[in-house]
Amino acid sequence: MQPFDQVSIIGVGLLGGSVALAMGERSLAKNIVGIGRDTAKLQALVDRGMLDRATIDLAGGIAKSDLVIVCTPVDTVVPSVLEAIRAAPENCLFTDVGSTKAEIVQQIVAEGGESASRFVGSHPLAGDHRCGAEFARGDLFEGRTVVVTPCNSTDAEATERVAALWKALGSHVVKLEPDEHDAALAMTSHLPHLLASALAAATPDGILDLAATGWADTTRVAAGDPELWRQIFLANRTQVLTALNQFDQHLQSIRDALEAQDGPELERLLAEGKRIRDAVGN
Amino acid sequence: MQPFDQVSIIGVGLLGGSVALAMGERSLAKNIVGIGRDTAKLQALVDRGMLDRATIDLAGGIAKSDLVIVCTPVDTVVPSVLEAIRAAPENCLFTDVGSTKAEIVQQIVAEGGESASRFVGSHPLAGDHRCGAEFARGDLFEGRTVVVTPCNSTDAEATERVAALWKALGSHVVKLEPDEHDAALAMTSHLPHLLASALAAATPDGILDLAATGWADTTRVAAGDPELWRQIFLANRTQVLTALNQFDQHLQSIRDALEAQDGPELERLLAEGKRIRDAVGN
Repeated sequence: MQPFDQVSIIGVGLLGGSVALAMGERSLAKNIVGIGRDTAKLQALVDRGMLDRATIDLAGGIAKSDLVIVCTPVDTVVPSVLEAIRAAPENCLFTDVGSTKAEIVQQIVAEGGESASRFVGSHPLAGDHRCGAEFARGDLFEGRTVVVTPCNSTDAEATERVAALWKALGSHVVKLEPDEHDAALAMTSHLPHLLASALAAATPDGILDLAATGWADTTRVAAGDPELWRQIFLANRTQVLTALNQFDQHLQSIRDALEAQDGPELERLLAEGKRIRDAVGN
Repeated sequence: MQPFDQVSIIGVGLLGGSVALAMGERSLAKNIVGIGRDTAKLQALVDRGMLDRATIDLAGGIAKSDLVIVCTPVDTVVPSVLEAIRAAPENCLFTDVGSTKAEIVQQIVAEGGESASRFVGSHPLAGDHRCGAEFARGDLFEGRTVVVTPCNSTDAEATERVAALWKALGSHVVKLEPDEHDAALAMTSHLPHLLASALAAATPDGILDLAATGWADTTRVAAGDPELWRQIFLANRTQVLTALNQFDQHLQSIRDALEAQDGPELERLLAEGKRIRDAVGN
Protein backbone atom coordinates (compact mmCIF):
# COMPACT_ATOMS: atom_id res chain seq x y z
CA MET A 1 0.00 0.00 0.00
CA GLN A 2 0.94 3.67 -0.51
CA PRO A 3 2.82 4.78 2.63
CA PHE A 4 1.27 7.41 4.88
CA ASP A 5 3.14 10.70 5.20
CA GLN A 6 2.76 10.87 8.93
CA VAL A 7 1.07 8.49 11.35
CA SER A 8 0.37 9.62 14.90
CA ILE A 9 -0.01 6.97 17.55
CA ILE A 10 -1.82 8.12 20.67
CA GLY A 11 -0.84 5.87 23.57
CA VAL A 12 2.40 4.02 22.98
CA GLY A 13 2.05 0.86 25.06
CA LEU A 14 2.09 -2.77 23.94
CA LEU A 15 -0.31 -2.23 21.04
CA GLY A 16 0.71 1.32 20.07
CA GLY A 17 4.37 0.37 20.22
CA SER A 18 3.74 -2.73 18.14
CA VAL A 19 1.88 -0.67 15.51
CA ALA A 20 4.85 1.71 15.39
CA LEU A 21 7.35 -1.12 14.99
CA ALA A 22 5.20 -2.99 12.45
CA MET A 23 4.62 0.12 10.30
CA GLY A 24 8.27 1.17 10.59
CA GLU A 25 9.61 -2.23 9.58
CA ARG A 26 7.33 -2.24 6.53
CA SER A 27 7.99 1.42 5.57
CA LEU A 28 4.27 2.16 5.77
CA ALA A 29 4.77 5.71 7.07
CA LYS A 30 7.42 8.31 6.29
CA ASN A 31 7.16 9.69 9.78
CA ILE A 32 5.93 7.99 12.97
CA VAL A 33 4.92 10.27 15.84
CA GLY A 34 4.19 8.93 19.31
CA ILE A 35 1.87 10.86 21.60
CA GLY A 36 1.76 10.09 25.31
CA ARG A 37 1.91 11.55 28.78
CA ASP A 38 5.45 10.81 29.97
CA THR A 39 8.20 12.73 28.15
CA ALA A 40 11.05 10.59 29.46
CA LYS A 41 9.38 7.30 28.50
CA LEU A 42 8.48 8.66 25.05
CA GLN A 43 12.04 9.87 24.48
CA ALA A 44 13.33 6.39 25.30
CA LEU A 45 11.13 5.00 22.50
CA VAL A 46 12.54 7.59 20.08
CA ASP A 47 16.06 6.64 21.17
CA ARG A 48 15.20 2.98 20.63
CA GLY A 49 14.17 3.84 17.06
CA MET A 50 10.53 2.88 17.54
CA LEU A 51 9.31 6.45 16.90
CA ASP A 52 10.65 9.24 14.69
CA ARG A 53 9.30 11.85 17.06
CA ALA A 54 7.38 11.98 20.33
CA THR A 55 5.32 14.59 22.11
CA ILE A 56 2.90 15.06 24.97
CA ASP A 57 1.06 17.73 22.93
CA LEU A 58 -1.75 15.86 21.17
CA ALA A 59 -2.75 18.70 18.83
CA GLY A 60 0.86 19.42 17.85
CA GLY A 61 1.58 15.75 17.26
CA ILE A 62 -1.36 15.42 14.89
CA ALA A 63 -1.35 18.70 12.94
CA LYS A 64 0.33 17.20 9.87
CA SER A 65 -0.85 13.59 10.06
CA ASP A 66 -2.85 11.67 7.51
CA LEU A 67 -3.43 8.77 9.90
CA VAL A 68 -4.15 8.74 13.64
CA ILE A 69 -4.27 5.45 15.57
CA VAL A 70 -5.63 5.70 19.10
CA CYS A 71 -4.09 2.97 21.27
CA THR A 72 -5.17 4.14 24.71
CA PRO A 73 -7.24 2.15 27.22
CA VAL A 74 -10.92 1.87 26.24
CA ASP A 75 -12.12 4.73 28.47
CA THR A 76 -9.93 7.33 26.77
CA VAL A 77 -10.47 6.29 23.16
CA VAL A 78 -13.46 8.61 22.59
CA PRO A 79 -11.94 11.80 24.05
CA SER A 80 -8.67 11.08 22.24
CA VAL A 81 -10.37 10.58 18.88
CA LEU A 82 -12.52 13.69 19.35
CA GLU A 83 -9.48 15.76 20.25
CA ALA A 84 -7.60 14.33 17.28
CA ILE A 85 -10.51 15.16 14.94
CA ARG A 86 -10.35 18.78 16.06
CA ALA A 87 -6.56 19.01 15.51
CA ALA A 88 -6.06 16.94 12.38
CA PRO A 89 -5.86 18.11 8.77
CA GLU A 90 -8.81 17.49 6.45
CA ASN A 91 -8.93 13.95 5.07
CA CYS A 92 -6.98 12.52 7.98
CA LEU A 93 -8.01 8.96 8.75
CA PHE A 94 -8.72 7.80 12.33
CA THR A 95 -8.81 4.38 13.92
CA ASP A 96 -8.32 2.79 17.33
CA VAL A 97 -7.50 -0.61 18.80
CA GLY A 98 -10.10 -0.76 21.61
CA SER A 99 -11.44 -4.12 22.79
CA THR A 100 -15.03 -2.84 22.73
CA LYS A 101 -16.63 -1.02 19.83
CA ALA A 102 -20.35 -0.13 20.04
CA GLU A 103 -20.10 2.58 22.69
CA ILE A 104 -16.95 4.04 21.13
CA VAL A 105 -18.32 4.19 17.59
CA GLN A 106 -21.68 5.56 18.73
CA GLN A 107 -20.15 8.38 20.78
CA ILE A 108 -17.71 9.39 18.06
CA VAL A 109 -20.50 9.50 15.48
CA ALA A 110 -22.63 11.55 17.89
CA GLU A 111 -19.95 14.06 18.80
CA GLY A 112 -17.34 13.97 16.04
CA GLY A 113 -19.24 15.88 13.37
CA GLU A 114 -18.59 15.25 9.70
CA SER A 115 -15.04 14.01 10.30
CA ALA A 116 -16.43 11.07 12.27
CA SER A 117 -17.09 9.41 8.91
CA ARG A 118 -13.32 8.99 8.64
CA PHE A 119 -13.11 7.15 11.96
CA VAL A 120 -13.10 3.38 11.44
CA GLY A 121 -13.13 1.32 14.63
CA SER A 122 -10.59 -1.51 14.78
CA HIS A 123 -9.90 -4.30 17.23
CA PRO A 124 -6.80 -6.41 16.66
CA LEU A 125 -7.21 -9.79 18.39
CA ALA A 126 -3.60 -9.67 19.39
CA GLY A 127 -1.88 -8.81 22.58
CA ASP A 128 -0.45 -10.16 25.69
CA HIS A 129 -1.45 -10.15 29.34
CA ARG A 130 1.67 -8.01 29.78
CA CYS A 131 1.41 -4.27 29.18
CA GLY A 132 3.90 -1.67 28.06
CA ALA A 133 5.95 -0.68 25.03
CA GLU A 134 8.82 -2.85 26.27
CA PHE A 135 6.85 -5.91 25.14
CA ALA A 136 5.97 -4.38 21.73
CA ARG A 137 6.83 -6.48 18.68
CA GLY A 138 6.70 -5.67 14.98
CA ASP A 139 5.17 -9.07 14.25
CA LEU A 140 2.40 -8.84 16.88
CA PHE A 141 -0.33 -8.59 14.24
CA GLU A 142 0.98 -11.23 11.85
CA GLY A 143 -1.49 -14.03 11.32
CA ARG A 144 -3.94 -12.45 13.77
CA THR A 145 -7.53 -11.40 13.13
CA VAL A 146 -8.37 -7.70 13.18
CA VAL A 147 -12.05 -6.80 13.39
CA VAL A 148 -12.93 -3.56 11.60
CA THR A 149 -16.29 -2.07 12.57
CA PRO A 150 -17.61 0.56 10.16
CA CYS A 151 -21.17 1.80 10.75
CA ASN A 152 -23.77 3.30 8.37
CA SER A 153 -22.15 6.70 8.36
CA THR A 154 -18.57 5.53 7.89
CA ASP A 155 -16.86 6.54 4.65
CA ALA A 156 -16.39 3.44 2.49
CA GLU A 157 -12.95 4.45 1.27
CA ALA A 158 -11.79 5.11 4.84
CA THR A 159 -12.93 1.61 5.77
CA GLU A 160 -10.99 0.10 2.87
CA ARG A 161 -7.84 2.03 3.74
CA VAL A 162 -7.94 0.98 7.41
CA ALA A 163 -8.57 -2.63 6.38
CA ALA A 164 -5.64 -2.42 3.94
CA LEU A 165 -3.38 -1.11 6.72
CA TRP A 166 -4.08 -4.12 8.95
CA LYS A 167 -3.63 -6.49 6.02
CA ALA A 168 -0.28 -4.84 5.33
CA LEU A 169 0.68 -5.62 8.94
CA GLY A 170 -0.03 -9.30 8.26
CA SER A 171 -3.50 -9.57 9.75
CA HIS A 172 -6.66 -11.23 8.55
CA VAL A 173 -9.43 -8.60 8.47
CA VAL A 174 -13.05 -9.30 9.42
CA LYS A 175 -15.74 -6.62 9.08
CA LEU A 176 -18.52 -6.60 11.65
CA GLU A 177 -21.14 -4.20 12.93
CA PRO A 178 -19.97 -2.68 16.24
CA ASP A 179 -22.78 -4.49 18.09
CA GLU A 180 -21.97 -7.82 16.47
CA HIS A 181 -18.35 -7.35 17.45
CA ASP A 182 -19.23 -6.65 21.06
CA ALA A 183 -21.57 -9.61 21.34
CA ALA A 184 -18.99 -12.00 19.89
CA LEU A 185 -16.07 -10.66 21.90
CA ALA A 186 -18.12 -10.76 25.10
CA MET A 187 -18.10 -14.53 24.64
CA THR A 188 -14.66 -15.11 23.10
CA SER A 189 -12.62 -12.66 25.18
CA HIS A 190 -14.40 -10.84 28.00
CA LEU A 191 -16.21 -13.81 29.55
CA PRO A 192 -13.03 -15.97 29.54
CA HIS A 193 -11.30 -13.18 31.46
CA LEU A 194 -14.15 -12.94 33.95
CA LEU A 195 -14.13 -16.71 34.59
CA ALA A 196 -10.35 -16.86 34.83
CA SER A 197 -10.38 -14.08 37.37
CA ALA A 198 -13.13 -15.66 39.49
CA LEU A 199 -11.36 -19.05 39.40
CA ALA A 200 -8.03 -17.54 40.45
CA ALA A 201 -9.71 -15.58 43.24
CA ALA A 202 -11.56 -18.69 44.45
CA THR A 203 -8.33 -20.68 44.79
CA PRO A 204 -6.93 -20.51 48.36
CA ASP A 205 -3.28 -19.41 48.52
CA GLY A 206 -2.43 -22.50 50.56
CA ILE A 207 -3.02 -24.92 47.68
CA LEU A 208 -1.34 -22.98 44.87
CA ASP A 209 1.56 -25.46 44.84
CA LEU A 210 -1.02 -28.02 43.68
CA ALA A 211 -1.96 -25.88 40.66
CA ALA A 212 -0.61 -27.60 37.56
CA THR A 213 -0.77 -26.65 33.89
CA GLY A 214 -4.56 -26.97 33.70
CA TRP A 215 -5.10 -24.30 36.34
CA ALA A 216 -2.31 -22.17 34.87
CA ASP A 217 -3.85 -22.25 31.39
CA THR A 218 -7.41 -21.69 32.56
CA THR A 219 -6.48 -18.67 34.71
CA ARG A 220 -3.70 -17.15 32.55
CA VAL A 221 -5.63 -14.09 31.36
CA ALA A 222 -6.48 -13.17 34.96
CA ALA A 223 -2.97 -11.67 35.09
CA GLY A 224 -4.20 -8.84 32.85
CA ASP A 225 -4.33 -5.26 34.09
CA PRO A 226 -7.40 -4.81 36.39
CA GLU A 227 -7.86 -1.16 35.40
CA LEU A 228 -7.90 -1.91 31.65
CA TRP A 229 -10.26 -4.82 32.14
CA ARG A 230 -12.59 -2.89 34.44
CA GLN A 231 -13.00 -0.43 31.56
CA ILE A 232 -13.64 -3.19 29.02
CA PHE A 233 -16.21 -4.93 31.24
CA LEU A 234 -18.12 -1.72 31.95
CA ALA A 235 -18.02 -0.60 28.31
CA ASN A 236 -19.44 -3.95 27.19
CA ARG A 237 -21.50 -4.62 30.29
CA THR A 238 -24.79 -5.74 28.73
CA GLN A 239 -23.18 -8.15 26.29
CA VAL A 240 -20.88 -9.59 28.95
CA LEU A 241 -23.86 -10.25 31.22
CA THR A 242 -25.65 -11.95 28.32
CA ALA A 243 -22.63 -14.14 27.60
CA LEU A 244 -22.40 -14.97 31.31
CA ASN A 245 -26.03 -16.10 31.31
CA GLN A 246 -25.38 -18.34 28.30
CA PHE A 247 -22.36 -19.81 30.06
CA ASP A 248 -24.42 -20.33 33.23
CA GLN A 249 -26.85 -22.55 31.38
CA HIS A 250 -24.05 -24.84 30.24
CA LEU A 251 -22.46 -24.83 33.68
CA GLN A 252 -25.82 -25.68 35.24
CA SER A 253 -26.24 -28.64 32.87
CA ILE A 254 -22.89 -30.02 34.00
CA ARG A 255 -23.76 -29.40 37.65
CA ASP A 256 -27.11 -31.15 37.24
CA ALA A 257 -25.47 -34.18 35.63
CA LEU A 258 -22.87 -34.29 38.39
CA GLU A 259 -25.44 -34.00 41.17
CA ALA A 260 -27.57 -36.70 39.56
CA GLN A 261 -24.46 -38.86 39.03
CA ASP A 262 -25.60 -39.15 35.44
CA GLY A 263 -22.40 -40.44 33.80
CA PRO A 264 -23.63 -40.67 30.18
CA GLU A 265 -25.04 -37.12 30.25
CA LEU A 266 -21.90 -35.77 31.91
CA GLU A 267 -19.74 -37.42 29.28
CA ARG A 268 -21.97 -36.06 26.51
CA LEU A 269 -21.59 -32.51 27.86
CA LEU A 270 -17.82 -32.87 28.15
CA ALA A 271 -17.69 -34.23 24.60
CA GLU A 272 -19.57 -31.16 23.35
CA GLY A 273 -17.00 -28.88 25.00
CA LYS A 274 -14.20 -30.95 23.50
CA ARG A 275 -15.74 -30.77 20.03
CA ILE A 276 -15.77 -26.97 20.08
CA ARG A 277 -12.33 -26.71 21.68
CA ASP A 278 -10.85 -29.09 19.12
CA ALA A 279 -12.32 -26.99 16.29
CA VAL A 280 -10.06 -24.12 17.32
CA GLY A 281 -6.86 -26.12 17.85
CA ASN A 282 -3.60 -25.16 19.53
CA MET B 1 17.84 -45.46 44.93
CA GLN B 2 18.26 -49.24 44.78
CA PRO B 3 16.75 -50.42 41.47
CA PHE B 4 13.67 -52.62 41.53
CA ASP B 5 14.04 -56.13 40.14
CA GLN B 6 10.85 -55.97 38.15
CA VAL B 7 8.30 -53.20 37.80
CA SER B 8 4.92 -53.95 36.25
CA ILE B 9 3.01 -51.09 34.72
CA ILE B 10 -0.70 -51.74 34.31
CA GLY B 11 -2.07 -49.45 31.58
CA VAL B 12 0.62 -48.16 29.26
CA GLY B 13 -0.75 -44.83 28.01
CA LEU B 14 0.69 -41.35 28.38
CA LEU B 15 1.45 -41.73 32.10
CA GLY B 16 2.29 -45.44 32.17
CA GLY B 17 4.52 -45.04 29.12
CA SER B 18 6.24 -42.06 30.66
CA VAL B 19 6.87 -43.99 33.89
CA ALA B 20 8.39 -46.80 31.81
CA LEU B 21 10.64 -44.42 29.87
CA ALA B 22 11.62 -42.44 32.96
CA MET B 23 12.50 -45.57 34.99
CA GLY B 24 14.29 -47.13 32.02
CA GLU B 25 16.43 -44.06 31.33
CA ARG B 26 17.44 -43.92 35.00
CA SER B 27 18.04 -47.69 35.35
CA LEU B 28 15.54 -47.84 38.21
CA ALA B 29 14.30 -51.33 37.29
CA LYS B 30 16.12 -54.34 35.91
CA ASN B 31 13.00 -55.42 34.06
CA ILE B 32 10.02 -53.32 32.95
CA VAL B 33 6.81 -55.22 32.15
CA GLY B 34 3.84 -53.55 30.49
CA ILE B 35 0.36 -54.93 31.07
CA GLY B 36 -2.51 -53.89 28.82
CA ARG B 37 -5.37 -55.11 26.67
CA ASP B 38 -4.05 -54.85 23.11
CA THR B 39 -1.26 -57.27 22.22
CA ALA B 40 -0.24 -55.50 19.00
CA LYS B 41 0.00 -52.09 20.65
CA LEU B 42 1.95 -53.53 23.57
CA GLN B 43 4.36 -55.32 21.23
CA ALA B 44 5.01 -52.01 19.43
CA LEU B 45 6.08 -50.52 22.77
CA VAL B 46 8.45 -53.45 23.37
CA ASP B 47 9.84 -52.98 19.85
CA ARG B 48 10.31 -49.29 20.58
CA GLY B 49 12.36 -50.22 23.66
CA MET B 50 9.94 -48.68 26.12
CA LEU B 51 9.18 -52.05 27.75
CA ASP B 52 11.30 -55.17 28.26
CA ARG B 53 8.24 -57.38 28.09
CA ALA B 54 4.50 -56.97 27.59
CA THR B 55 1.48 -59.10 28.33
CA ILE B 56 -2.30 -58.98 28.53
CA ASP B 57 -2.18 -61.49 31.43
CA LEU B 58 -2.21 -59.35 34.56
CA ALA B 59 -1.40 -62.15 37.00
CA GLY B 60 1.43 -63.47 34.83
CA GLY B 61 2.88 -60.01 34.34
CA ILE B 62 3.02 -59.42 38.07
CA ALA B 63 4.07 -62.79 39.51
CA LYS B 64 7.73 -61.80 39.97
CA SER B 65 7.39 -58.04 40.48
CA ASP B 66 8.51 -56.01 43.47
CA LEU B 67 6.70 -52.88 42.25
CA VAL B 68 3.33 -52.48 40.50
CA ILE B 69 2.24 -49.09 39.16
CA VAL B 70 -1.39 -48.87 38.07
CA CYS B 71 -1.76 -46.24 35.33
CA THR B 72 -5.29 -47.00 34.16
CA PRO B 73 -8.22 -44.54 34.09
CA VAL B 74 -9.60 -43.77 37.56
CA ASP B 75 -12.51 -46.25 37.36
CA THR B 76 -10.24 -49.27 36.88
CA VAL B 77 -7.58 -48.42 39.44
CA VAL B 78 -9.26 -50.29 42.31
CA PRO B 79 -9.97 -53.57 40.47
CA SER B 80 -6.49 -53.47 38.95
CA VAL B 81 -4.79 -52.97 42.32
CA LEU B 82 -6.92 -55.68 43.96
CA GLU B 83 -6.09 -58.13 41.19
CA ALA B 84 -2.41 -57.20 41.43
CA ILE B 85 -2.46 -57.74 45.20
CA ARG B 86 -3.78 -61.27 44.67
CA ALA B 87 -1.13 -62.10 42.05
CA ALA B 88 1.96 -60.37 43.42
CA PRO B 89 4.73 -61.83 45.58
CA GLU B 90 4.91 -60.94 49.26
CA ASN B 91 6.44 -57.53 49.94
CA CYS B 92 5.52 -56.19 46.50
CA LEU B 93 4.84 -52.45 46.56
CA PHE B 94 1.76 -50.95 44.84
CA THR B 95 0.97 -47.45 43.67
CA ASP B 96 -1.18 -45.71 41.07
CA VAL B 97 -1.33 -42.37 39.24
CA GLY B 98 -5.07 -41.62 39.55
CA SER B 99 -6.32 -38.02 39.63
CA THR B 100 -8.61 -38.75 42.59
CA LYS B 101 -7.55 -40.52 45.76
CA ALA B 102 -10.09 -40.81 48.61
CA GLU B 103 -12.42 -43.35 46.99
CA ILE B 104 -9.50 -45.37 45.60
CA VAL B 105 -7.57 -45.56 48.88
CA GLN B 106 -10.69 -46.32 50.89
CA GLN B 107 -11.81 -49.20 48.66
CA ILE B 108 -8.35 -50.73 48.50
CA VAL B 109 -8.03 -50.61 52.29
CA ALA B 110 -11.50 -52.14 52.63
CA GLU B 111 -10.97 -54.95 50.16
CA GLY B 112 -7.23 -55.46 49.80
CA GLY B 113 -6.57 -57.24 53.10
CA GLU B 114 -3.19 -57.00 54.77
CA SER B 115 -1.35 -56.26 51.53
CA ALA B 116 -3.30 -53.01 51.18
CA SER B 117 -0.80 -51.52 53.63
CA ARG B 118 1.73 -51.69 50.81
CA PHE B 119 -0.48 -49.67 48.46
CA VAL B 120 0.49 -45.99 48.47
CA GLY B 121 -1.70 -43.72 46.38
CA SER B 122 0.11 -41.31 44.07
CA HIS B 123 -0.98 -38.48 41.81
CA PRO B 124 1.63 -36.91 39.56
CA LEU B 125 0.53 -33.39 38.56
CA ALA B 126 1.89 -33.99 35.11
CA GLY B 127 0.31 -34.89 31.88
CA ASP B 128 -1.11 -33.56 28.74
CA HIS B 129 -4.58 -33.16 27.29
CA ARG B 130 -3.38 -35.72 24.73
CA CYS B 131 -3.62 -39.40 25.57
CA GLY B 132 -1.63 -42.40 24.52
CA ALA B 133 1.83 -43.92 24.85
CA GLU B 134 2.91 -42.14 21.65
CA PHE B 135 3.08 -38.89 23.66
CA ALA B 136 4.99 -40.51 26.57
CA ARG B 137 8.22 -38.79 27.61
CA GLY B 138 10.93 -39.82 30.04
CA ASP B 139 11.10 -36.29 31.43
CA LEU B 140 7.36 -35.91 32.00
CA PHE B 141 7.74 -35.93 35.79
CA GLU B 142 10.81 -33.70 36.03
CA GLY B 143 10.15 -30.59 38.07
CA ARG B 144 6.51 -31.61 38.64
CA THR B 145 4.72 -32.15 41.91
CA VAL B 146 3.61 -35.65 42.83
CA VAL B 147 1.11 -35.97 45.67
CA VAL B 148 1.51 -39.15 47.69
CA THR B 149 -1.49 -40.06 49.85
CA PRO B 150 -0.79 -42.62 52.57
CA CYS B 151 -3.55 -43.25 55.11
CA ASN B 152 -3.45 -44.51 58.73
CA SER B 153 -3.01 -48.12 57.72
CA THR B 154 -0.31 -47.54 55.11
CA ASP B 155 3.10 -49.02 55.84
CA ALA B 156 5.54 -46.19 56.55
CA GLU B 157 8.42 -47.81 54.68
CA ALA B 158 6.22 -48.38 51.64
CA THR B 159 5.33 -44.67 51.67
CA GLU B 160 8.98 -43.70 51.81
CA ARG B 161 9.90 -46.01 48.95
CA VAL B 162 7.12 -44.71 46.71
CA ALA B 163 8.09 -41.12 47.55
CA ALA B 164 11.74 -41.96 46.76
CA LEU B 165 10.71 -43.38 43.39
CA TRP B 166 8.99 -40.15 42.33
CA LYS B 167 11.90 -38.09 43.59
CA ALA B 168 14.22 -40.28 41.51
CA LEU B 169 12.08 -39.39 38.47
CA GLY B 170 12.74 -35.69 39.16
CA SER B 171 9.51 -34.80 40.96
CA HIS B 172 8.82 -32.77 44.06
CA VAL B 173 6.81 -34.94 46.47
CA VAL B 174 4.00 -33.63 48.69
CA LYS B 175 2.27 -35.90 51.22
CA LEU B 176 -1.43 -35.31 51.83
CA GLU B 177 -4.35 -37.21 53.30
CA PRO B 178 -6.48 -38.64 50.46
CA ASP B 179 -9.36 -36.29 51.39
CA GLU B 180 -7.10 -33.25 51.50
CA HIS B 181 -5.77 -34.18 48.08
CA ASP B 182 -9.23 -34.49 46.61
CA ALA B 183 -10.42 -31.18 48.06
CA ALA B 184 -7.38 -29.32 46.74
CA LEU B 185 -7.41 -30.94 43.31
CA ALA B 186 -11.14 -30.30 42.96
CA MET B 187 -10.20 -26.61 42.95
CA THR B 188 -6.85 -26.68 41.14
CA SER B 189 -7.63 -29.23 38.45
CA HIS B 190 -11.18 -30.57 38.26
CA LEU B 191 -13.04 -27.25 38.51
CA PRO B 192 -10.83 -25.60 35.85
CA HIS B 193 -11.71 -28.47 33.52
CA LEU B 194 -15.41 -28.11 34.26
CA LEU B 195 -15.34 -24.34 33.58
CA ALA B 196 -13.24 -24.73 30.44
CA SER B 197 -15.68 -27.29 29.11
CA ALA B 198 -18.76 -25.16 29.85
CA LEU B 199 -17.12 -22.09 28.28
CA ALA B 200 -16.19 -23.99 25.13
CA ALA B 201 -19.67 -25.48 24.87
CA ALA B 202 -21.28 -22.05 25.37
CA THR B 203 -19.32 -20.53 22.48
CA PRO B 204 -21.31 -20.64 19.20
CA ASP B 205 -19.43 -22.27 16.30
CA GLY B 206 -20.05 -19.19 14.15
CA ILE B 207 -17.78 -16.93 16.22
CA LEU B 208 -14.85 -19.29 16.74
CA ASP B 209 -12.74 -17.28 14.30
CA LEU B 210 -12.97 -14.47 16.86
CA ALA B 211 -11.49 -16.65 19.59
CA ALA B 212 -7.98 -15.40 20.32
CA THR B 213 -5.33 -16.58 22.76
CA GLY B 214 -7.40 -15.72 25.84
CA TRP B 215 -10.20 -18.07 24.84
CA ALA B 216 -7.69 -20.70 23.70
CA ASP B 217 -5.85 -20.63 27.04
CA THR B 218 -8.99 -20.58 29.15
CA THR B 219 -10.57 -23.54 27.33
CA ARG B 220 -7.43 -25.60 26.58
CA VAL B 221 -8.11 -28.41 29.05
CA ALA B 222 -11.58 -28.94 27.60
CA ALA B 223 -9.81 -30.94 24.86
CA GLY B 224 -9.20 -33.70 27.41
CA ASP B 225 -10.79 -37.12 27.03
CA PRO B 226 -14.48 -36.95 28.06
CA GLU B 227 -14.52 -40.55 29.31
CA LEU B 228 -11.49 -40.10 31.57
CA TRP B 229 -12.85 -36.83 32.92
CA ARG B 230 -16.35 -38.21 33.49
CA GLN B 231 -14.69 -40.79 35.75
CA ILE B 232 -12.68 -38.15 37.61
CA PHE B 233 -15.71 -35.90 38.15
CA LEU B 234 -17.87 -38.72 39.44
CA ALA B 235 -15.12 -40.11 41.68
CA ASN B 236 -14.59 -36.68 43.24
CA ARG B 237 -18.17 -35.48 42.91
CA THR B 238 -18.74 -33.99 46.37
CA GLN B 239 -15.49 -32.03 46.42
CA VAL B 240 -16.00 -30.77 42.87
CA LEU B 241 -19.47 -29.50 43.78
CA THR B 242 -18.01 -27.78 46.85
CA ALA B 243 -15.30 -26.10 44.74
CA LEU B 244 -17.96 -25.07 42.23
CA ASN B 245 -19.96 -23.41 45.00
CA GLN B 246 -16.88 -21.50 46.17
CA PHE B 247 -16.23 -20.38 42.59
CA ASP B 248 -19.88 -19.33 42.24
CA GLN B 249 -19.54 -16.92 45.13
CA HIS B 250 -16.63 -15.15 43.45
CA LEU B 251 -18.39 -15.15 40.10
CA GLN B 252 -21.49 -13.71 41.72
CA SER B 253 -19.46 -10.90 43.29
CA ILE B 254 -18.12 -9.95 39.86
CA ARG B 255 -21.60 -10.18 38.37
CA ASP B 256 -23.04 -7.98 41.12
CA ALA B 257 -20.34 -5.34 40.59
CA LEU B 258 -20.93 -5.41 36.85
CA GLU B 259 -24.72 -5.13 37.19
CA ALA B 260 -24.32 -2.27 39.66
CA GLN B 261 -21.71 -0.63 37.39
CA ASP B 262 -19.50 -0.45 40.47
CA GLY B 263 -16.13 0.23 38.85
CA PRO B 264 -13.97 0.36 42.01
CA GLU B 265 -15.40 -2.93 43.34
CA LEU B 266 -15.03 -4.59 39.94
CA GLU B 267 -11.41 -3.48 39.72
CA ARG B 268 -10.78 -4.70 43.29
CA LEU B 269 -12.15 -8.16 42.42
CA LEU B 270 -10.07 -8.33 39.24
CA ALA B 271 -6.98 -7.27 41.22
CA GLU B 272 -7.59 -10.12 43.68
CA GLY B 273 -7.69 -12.62 40.81
CA LYS B 274 -4.52 -11.12 39.37
CA ARG B 275 -2.74 -11.31 42.73
CA ILE B 276 -3.36 -15.05 42.99
CA ARG B 277 -2.60 -15.69 39.32
CA ASP B 278 0.65 -13.75 39.54
CA ALA B 279 1.69 -15.80 42.59
CA VAL B 280 1.80 -18.90 40.39
CA GLY B 281 3.60 -17.38 37.41
CA ASN B 282 4.11 -18.69 33.88
